[in-house]
Amino acid sequence: MRRIARIFVIVVLTAIINVPTTQQCGYQSCNPVKEGMINVHLVPHTHDDVGWLKTVDQYFYGDKNYIQVAGVQYILDSVVQELMKDPNKRFIYVEIGFFSRWWKEQSQQMKLSVKKLVDEGRLEFILGGWSMDDEATTHYNAIIDEHTLGFQFLKDNFGECGRPRVAWQIDPFGHSREHASLFARMGFDGLFFGRLDYQDKAKRMNTKTMEMIWQGSPKNLGSQSDLFTGVLFNGYNPPKGFCFDVTCRDDPIMDDPNLHDYNVPQKVAEFINATRTQAESYATKHLIMTMGSDFNYQNANMWYKNLDKLIRYVNNEQKHGGNINLLYSTPSCYLYQLNKANLTWPTKQDDFFPYAHIPHGFWSGYFTSRPALKRYIMKEAMGVAQHHDAVSGTEKQAVADDYALRLFVGTNACQNIINDAYKLISPIDQSVPLPDQQFCNLLNISKCSITEENKHFTVTIYNPLARKVSHYISIPTTLKACTVTDPLGKVVTSQIVPISKETKRIPERKGSIGENNIVFQVLLPPLGYSTYFVRSTAVKDKNQETKQQYPTSNKDISMNNTYIAVTFDGATGNLKMIKNLQSGVSAQVDHHMQYYTSHFGNTTVPKFEGSGAYIFRPNQTAPFDFENLFQVQSNYLHGQLVQEVHQQFSPWVSMVTRLYNDAQYLETEWTVGPIPTQDGIGREVISKFCSDLKTEATFYTDANGREILQRKRNYRPTWDFNNSEPVAGNYFPVNSRIYLEDAKRDILLTVLTDRSQGGSSIQDGCMELMVHRRLVVDDNLGVGEALNETGADGQGLVVRGKHYLFLDTIDRSAQLHRDMALKLYMEPVLSFTNSQMKQSEWSKHFRTQWSALGAKIPQNVHILTLEHLSQQNSSDTSQQQILLRLEHIYEKGEGGQLSSPAKVELRDLLKGYEVLSATELTLGANLKKSDLHRLPWKSRTTNDENVLKFLPYNRNRFLNILKGRKILNKFSDDLTITLNPMEIKTFHISVKKKGNA
Amino acid sequence: MRRIARIFVIVVLTAIINVPTTQQCGYQSCNPVKEGMINVHLVPHTHDDVGWLKTVDQYFYGDKNYIQVAGVQYILDSVVQELMKDPNKRFIYVEIGFFSRWWKEQSQQMKLSVKKLVDEGRLEFILGGWSMDDEATTHYNAIIDEHTLGFQFLKDNFGECGRPRVAWQIDPFGHSREHASLFARMGFDGLFFGRLDYQDKAKRMNTKTMEMIWQGSPKNLGSQSDLFTGVLFNGYNPPKGFCFDVTCRDDPIMDDPNLHDYNVPQKVAEFINATRTQAESYATKHLIMTMGSDFNYQNANMWYKNLDKLIRYVNNEQKHGGNINLLYSTPSCYLYQLNKANLTWPTKQDDFFPYAHIPHGFWSGYFTSRPALKRYIMKEAMGVAQHHDAVSGTEKQAVADDYALRLFVGTNACQNIINDAYKLISPIDQSVPLPDQQFCNLLNISKCSITEENKHFTVTIYNPLARKVSHYISIPTTLKACTVTDPLGKVVTSQIVPISKETKRIPERKGSIGENNIVFQVLLPPLGYSTYFVRSTAVKDKNQETKQQYPTSNKDISMNNTYIAVTFDGATGNLKMIKNLQSGVSAQVDHHMQYYTSHFGNTTVPKFEGSGAYIFRPNQTAPFDFENLFQVQSNYLHGQLVQEVHQQFSPWVSMVTRLYNDAQYLETEWTVGPIPTQDGIGREVISKFCSDLKTEATFYTDANGREILQRKRNYRPTWDFNNSEPVAGNYFPVNSRIYLEDAKRDILLTVLTDRSQGGSSIQDGCMELMVHRRLVVDDNLGVGEALNETGADGQGLVVRGKHYLFLDTIDRSAQLHRDMALKLYMEPVLSFTNSQMKQSEWSKHFRTQWSALGAKIPQNVHILTLEHLSQQNSSDTSQQQILLRLEHIYEKGEGGQLSSPAKVELRDLLKGYEVLSATELTLGANLKKSDLHRLPWKSRTTNDENVLKFLPYNRNRFLNILKGRKILNKFSDDLTITLNPMEIKTFHISVKKKGNA
Repeated sequence: MRRIARIFVIVVLTAIINVPTTQQCGYQSCNPVKEGMINVHLVPHTHDDVGWLKTVDQYFYGDKNYIQVAGVQYILDSVVQELMKDPNKRFIYVEIGFFSRWWKEQSQQMKLSVKKLVDEGRLEFILGGWSMDDEATTHYNAIIDEHTLGFQFLKDNFGECGRPRVAWQIDPFGHSREHASLFARMGFDGLFFGRLDYQDKAKRMNTKTMEMIWQGSPKNLGSQSDLFTGVLFNGYNPPKGFCFDVTCRDDPIMDDPNLHDYNVPQKVAEFINATRTQAESYATKHLIMTMGSDFNYQNANMWYKNLDKLIRYVNNEQKHGGNINLLYSTPSCYLYQLNKANLTWPTKQDDFFPYAHIPHGFWSGYFTSRPALKRYIMKEAMGVAQHHDAVSGTEKQAVADDYALRLFVGTNACQNIINDAYKLISPIDQSVPLPDQQFCNLLNISKCSITEENKHFTVTIYNPLARKVSHYISIPTTLKACTVTDPLGKVVTSQIVPISKETKRIPERKGSIGENNIVFQVLLPPLGYSTYFVRSTAVKDKNQETKQQYPTSNKDISMNNTYIAVTFDGATGNLKMIKNLQSGVSAQVDHHMQYYTSHFGNTTVPKFEGSGAYIFRPNQTAPFDFENLFQVQSNYLHGQLVQEVHQQFSPWVSMVTRLYNDAQYLETEWTVGPIPTQDGIGREVISKFCSDLKTEATFYTDANGREILQRKRNYRPTWDFNNSEPVAGNYFPVNSRIYLEDAKRDILLTVLTDRSQGGSSIQDGCMELMVHRRLVVDDNLGVGEALNETGADGQGLVVRGKHYLFLDTIDRSAQLHRDMALKLYMEPVLSFTNSQMKQSEWSKHFRTQWSALGAKIPQNVHILTLEHLSQQNSSDTSQQQILLRLEHIYEKGEGGQLSSPAKVELRDLLKGYEVLSATELTLGANLKKSDLHRLPWKSRTTNDENVLKFLPYNRNRFLNILKGRKILNKFSDDLTITLNPMEIKTFHISVKKKGNA
Repeated sequence: MRRIARIFVIVVLTAIINVPTTQQCGYQSCNPVKEGMINVHLVPHTHDDVGWLKTVDQYFYGDKNYIQVAGVQYILDSVVQELMKDPNKRFIYVEIGFFSRWWKEQSQQMKLSVKKLVDEGRLEFILGGWSMDDEATTHYNAIIDEHTLGFQFLKDNFGECGRPRVAWQIDPFGHSREHASLFARMGFDGLFFGRLDYQDKAKRMNTKTMEMIWQGSPKNLGSQSDLFTGVLFNGYNPPKGFCFDVTCRDDPIMDDPNLHDYNVPQKVAEFINATRTQAESYATKHLIMTMGSDFNYQNANMWYKNLDKLIRYVNNEQKHGGNINLLYSTPSCYLYQLNKANLTWPTKQDDFFPYAHIPHGFWSGYFTSRPALKRYIMKEAMGVAQHHDAVSGTEKQAVADDYALRLFVGTNACQNIINDAYKLISPIDQSVPLPDQQFCNLLNISKCSITEENKHFTVTIYNPLARKVSHYISIPTTLKACTVTDPLGKVVTSQIVPISKETKRIPERKGSIGENNIVFQVLLPPLGYSTYFVRSTAVKDKNQETKQQYPTSNKDISMNNTYIAVTFDGATGNLKMIKNLQSGVSAQVDHHMQYYTSHFGNTTVPKFEGSGAYIFRPNQTAPFDFENLFQVQSNYLHGQLVQEVHQQFSPWVSMVTRLYNDAQYLETEWTVGPIPTQDGIGREVISKFCSDLKTEATFYTDANGREILQRKRNYRPTWDFNNSEPVAGNYFPVNSRIYLEDAKRDILLTVLTDRSQGGSSIQDGCMELMVHRRLVVDDNLGVGEALNETGADGQGLVVRGKHYLFLDTIDRSAQLHRDMALKLYMEPVLSFTNSQMKQSEWSKHFRTQWSALGAKIPQNVHILTLEHLSQQNSSDTSQQQILLRLEHIYEKGEGGQLSSPAKVELRDLLKGYEVLSATELTLGANLKKSDLHRLPWKSRTTNDENVLKFLPYNRNRFLNILKGRKILNKFSDDLTITLNPMEIKTFHISVKKKGNA
């Protein structure tokens, strides 16, 4: 529950300060290579999904091995034991969510042994996130948080030798440029991954461009976001025939020449052959081979025993003129050799989406799979849920249920913490105890027992953003009339809106008695809360009512407020036109729910799979209209705060288009499900917006909620794209927004989403977002189930969500979507009491309004992180240590002045506290920024001088970093921070209560 | 190639003399128990089949894991590592064939570590044979040899602490009394096994008689063959839900109470429940639980980590009044507690055959499965081939092929050794080199290229028995006439017998050109050889010819020699009558080949399997005659040495009944195959002998070629037998003989076999032996294949074998079958040269006859073993060390005077050598007999005073044994040995060349 964590949660991580005297980790701990030979870096590794076919607990313990033979506790037990026996051996470990759990169970002696292995570079942490997160469906805030969590664990327990140097995204299904950019700023020297489009891979193999400099933010951040990136040859598997795991079936090396099955010459020849083949696709004399796979090394001896033999027998060929040299290595040791090779590397500026492994095999289904879980994760970010088989929706149903349960448990825990926090902050005197705050997690379907069952109640709304926010809230009730009072006691306008039939039929709403929603606008202070008071009144107020009418076909429906005017077709309720009343631009826009039917997979040869949890493969290029099946029914509701058009497309698809009287956007709320599959056909439902904009095959999508990428239909920037799937091959991940631009008319038509979805523009002027999918076949990529979610009633799941639509000029649109995206990601948190107290009484005992912010921050800056750190310097308990991240939320050239550099004064940022010092850290908060010296690379296209300054690796500098590991003890005095467009700065700040000095 | 090994092969086993100063092995190394509680002895173990679904090499290395995840090298690596970490842990290892292979690959340091584990009782060798041999189809000679081989390895490498104290036959499919008897005399204190008849088990569980004193030789050897025997509760598996192996699917113990899947209370309750259930069936407060299974512990940490938790959490219940105490233990530690319990145990005198696990599930098919392999193994005994999935025929086809290949390689190696030996022994001068001896392994189908392609050749016949032997040999040739000369140059009678059509059609005979066999009688010295000379002659000798006639229906065929007279039906060739001309007894006897069709397994519930590699389940009670399908065709051949009746029962079944002119038996040679299965029906072929003897449901079979057991139809001596399978439930293993007795008429009708087969008497007066089987379904007991052997032509395998039939008085029959069984098991070994030398020339250069025996030994004594030992006492190289086993081959009361005690003088036993000293050892040759102190047991029925002398375990005595470990340095002076009936005595003898003193 990220939104809350920033203020209330104190992260307590136990630090092991004890530092051994000799440390040999990092690049100087690598095993030696042989110059002039092909050096094969054998990298023993395990890929431990933090949930996929089994739940996280099951994977950790090795439970339910009938589903998959996988037990992480045994992997770590076994590997550590093998490493301790032989200083030549190496292993990398990646998923800190698992490692930390194992660590907790170890004895002090074992911890010291493991620390020694880490200090000597024999066990190396790579990536170091809590999980290996998905790149298509994750939000940058969650990505940063989950890596910070892992890094913090490593720093506290292993110090500088535990700091990961290389990012390792070997399994995710496509790769995001923003992700690379974040990694660069976390201080990684390089990134390796396993999956890229088969056409892309073929070209890169042919041109020896499997390794490159990926420019993560060419427009905004420049070289600081450049990241050396390598594509692995065999995904993350060993060459064919060389998997020696207990779960593999390859021949071991049988080296007793007296035995019938002696196979050394054959295995050596096969390995040499695999090496030569791989060498043809790479630019240097170094090759990396991933000697491991999913949950490998439960019995590490099996792997190492055979690798020992492989190394011995292949290297023995050197006596007979062989030029291949095998060594135990790690990705960072391999990377270091690439760096030493001092080549000029090719560059890349776009991303690696969508991923296709074969024709008709576009992995663009998972952009939308499990939309309810995606929404839940977006709201309640959590380390394990960012995993590439979690938020992606590509786990088994039972595992998805387990993630949901964990999120629920986490949410409850957070809600308790919020209660505690309110009890600390809110009381003015102690004469009356603050009533417990209660939470309603199903407000989106108008379910909330405390408001439905009480005539009087309070609503406290917490705003996690560091800016004032205005927000419309909607609360279910049985009341026919009421008054709403603001924190200062002023009655505010409210509207009673009947709860719709479409909402009432949702199975999860069972037991709700509310017939109406009370809607009102709340005004919230930055990083703070406001309490509102709702009281039943006997007399109905006409102004509070909502009028309802069934439009007729010969008259359009018009809605407008001070910002926009909108027209709908009177017969169908279909959107027809939007006009921006402030900038004056307008366009014809319509909006339909439609659907594709899903391919089953062909049975002919070559065989290609159908739509599944990963794959999107529609049966047709043009989606079906629901009108063909069911007459669209529409309805129009209007009152003094909100106007709504209700449309029913089919018995299982409905939509409400809503205009608040103070909103610059049109809100469309879709309700989809249960998707019928009784006819044995899978369906994938889209929300499609079409306009008269001239878009020339071009559209724009965000990357992980940050920078915007230009997309072109049937086009890839780096190769001649042969598209076998006209729809799926053009789908891209949409984390927060998608838009169309008509440059000639200076118009942008933008849709913001409330969760990650797949989206595209299949025809000019149109854009579509896939909102829900229910399938009947498995796509045979491992999950072993059809994606077939069911809800509380055992029927197909009903999912509800929102899109937010704007039309404006190009320049003005940036402010709208940047602001709005923040507000959507960091929604206010509502809580309730059934207190009978009026505002006048309540405010005697409790603060009705409160803000943590001490000074206003610029409009283009976002406080991304604000989190207590553990008290590392125990000598001065009057000071508190805080992790702060500030973000410039505009790209260069966006939104006029808003994209200028921003200045933030830190000293008085937090109300009641003085910021004493601020030390800038890397993005992952595990190294003082001034101590970061990433490996420099030369690239073919860059003209950034920082990159060209080639600084060879310097051991003394490295040792100085090691010595200076207590980076948090030394602070900068400069408390005025400047942020450039898209820049995120991370600080360790030290604060002291004012008046406490 | 056991027959050869005894003289020629010098067993060189490297001895590690280095003995550590502290040894804590044996019973005093056991973990403590808690008095008053139920002590659960958790026995971590692995059951490593020396071939079954994979070959021996594949199992060792972990190759072909797609068939079965099993790699013994990893098991031993892993277990040793875990044991070294914790002195509390225990493990047992069983199969020395695997262990010795692993040991060979270890460093000296690792060997010392392992030795320490053994010395401290943490790693304990149990059973200690080369493999865990089958009990139904093995010969006692092979059983003793393969255990001696394992014991020798253990003694040489681990000394007294490596000596196994407990026998462990956990998987074999039924248990032999003779096997128990041998084990007792090997010095085992007890035996545990896993499989017994389900009715037997139910009764034993009810009466708490799962543990007993098994009297292995109640009639002959008395208490020295008594063996404490325990039946394991769960076969050899852990209780349900507690298999923690990487190949298992049970839940691990998940003991972090913060995790969703925390299951400690549930697992503890389940285990306590399993313990209480088991305790209900056993007599003491101690229980043994086998914590392991097939090829478990490849990742020992998985097992031990969970067992540690199990022990901790279950024992923790003791704080709350629980009375269950778990400990790491071994079978011997468990046995020791049973012994200390000082109970009076029940006894058993019969055996545990046949085994049925369910109704209709009689494991009597494997008594015959793979008859060709059984014959091969019987001829060429070898450690791994005695394994219970080898000689039993219950391995996969590919594995059976591998065994055959190993036997072939072993045979070839032995043949080279024989050649070398002849080159040492045979030459008189060195003027002419001895021509290489060549061997013909397919003489039984008249294939031998050296004799078929040469006009003149020598035949050297080696006799491994320590008695003179006369033998008829039959050699294929193209010659029409020849002379045969004996070692002294005398021409011997020979007969030219045409090779039959039935032989010529056998696919494996392809390429043979011989049209006839030369038959002649050879006379062989004890433990020595004779060379005969065959030379082509131009002129045919009428006397040498074989006459052939087609009998007519109105005239019987009569055959006779000085011993017996036999009558056959003239029309069919069927045997009708046998008369013993010496004792005068006679009986009507007929002999038919018949067959059962095999059950497919019912598809109804309850489901029972059909006939398979293990199970025999015929479709009918009365087997089918071939006459129904195909008129029996007969033929009669006679000459001066041999007379034959040839019968063709069907295109794929034929038989030759043969009477040699100097034989007391009738030889019947059956040729069966390819068994047709094109109609989708499996068939099981029997050879059935019916007589007019009154047998009252009783018949007799041998146990492993030694003592005779009485069998009764539809009867079990220890429980009320409810027989669901009238045929299969009455089948018993026949290793060497089966007979019927008519006590009133004082007649025994005996059949000797050339290999192990299943046999029975389904009607009074009749006995049948199953000779071949070919099936179409798997019996779903693990092998995963139908038993469907194919031959050289890809068709069903053709198998040929012999039965030897006698009729005589009861007393005289014993001598016949005892002598004959020895001769069959230790057949002479023929070898050939194509030398042109006549006897007169050859004998100038080479010895034509030679014997190793220096003195005649009594007729009732057999030299079972005569084998060089490694030179342990290097100070006196003039002496040689030899392992000698002498056996009294008669049971008490058999064969008149022959069952009296026998005396053997050792001093001059070996020609040219003086026996200096002889020290008696236990049967397994790993302990001085006087140092053996088996645990004493009290039993309910025994009146043998030795057993009643209860000697509590004495630590000092044990330590004295340890100190006196160099047992071979101290010799007895008494060289006159007395053997009682059925007694085998084992000696280490020291010999010196005469005239060398």
